[in-house]
Amino acid sequence: MSYGATPYPYPMNYRSWLYQMKSSQPRFLHTALRIRNVGASLGFYIDGLGMTLLDRVEIESARATAMFLGYGINEGLLELVRFWDQDQPYQHSPGYIHAAIGVPDLKAILDRLQTMGVKITRSPVVMTQGAPAAAFLHDPDGYELEIVQTHNG
Amino acid sequence: MSYGATPYPYPMNYRSWLYQMKSSQPRFLHTALRIRNVGASLGFYIDGLGMTLLDRVEIESARATAMFLGYGINEGLLELVRFWDQDQPYQHSPGYIHAAIGVPDLKAILDRLQTMGVKITRSPVVMTQGAPAAAFLHDPDGYELEIVQTHNG
Repeated sequence: MSYGATPYPYPMNYRSWLYQMKSSQPRFLHTALRIRNVGASLGFYIDGLGMTLLDRVEIESARATAMFLGYGINEGLLELVRFWDQDQPYQHSPGYIHAAIGVPDLKAILDRLQTMGVKITRSPVVMTQGAPAAAFLHDPDGYELEIVQTHNG
Repeated sequence: MSYGATPYPYPMNYRSWLYQMKSSQPRFLHTALRIRNVGASLGFYIDGLGMTLLDRVEIESARATAMFLGYGINEGLLELVRFWDQDQPYQHSPGYIHAAIGVPDLKAILDRLQTMGVKITRSPVVMTQGAPAAAFLHDPDGYELEIVQTHNG
């Protein structure tokens, strides 16, 4: 099974990097979530949130497609996994809260996402004293994201 | 409400770092999960997996305690949130898969976790050709973790 050629090239190969990585310390690698629509998720995270597709692998034995996305191969990544035989939407449990992403121009990101039809579920708000503004929204599978305004360096 | 002084100091203040951070690029910050037992989670992630407590904040308005843990303030982190009024275990949905952590000595980590009473749900296995071995287990709230053998640099 194949979802066809992705319009998003992935010049970096996350697996090769990971398999070769040398580190004397433990490190956080990625958070993995199941998704249902490869095209919708890639559009959301790449076109909407500006991530890069770092790898994509078809796992025939598990009947799944795994994609690694992020802002840099050294940072925490998202692994999005499409199980080919999953027809129903995934139910969400109250345990998982969200992934948080820092952006230098929160308004620009939110404007772009809204243009793409994404609903902002909570407009930018300062949660605790001294904190930067953060907005909340959901990805195509309903996973919450917190988008945090960081300083533009 | 308070869970008392944590035995884990946190010399770094993640919030201060985040609030001051300057970056012209978006970046992945953390994955947030709800947990039920602060002591059990800190013991598991700090004593077991070698993470550092980077910040802890009591959010009175939300009646919650948030803790940020990880291997370095520049990497992807976990935010573990204890809602004070949550009595029941969190149900897990099939959408969330796991967080993945790379370690230079997989056997040592697994031995230590087993000594602490953690059950290894899947012994180290090579999932795909050329990949490093990975083991699977669950944190005190039942969230799956993938522990990946990386090279010792």
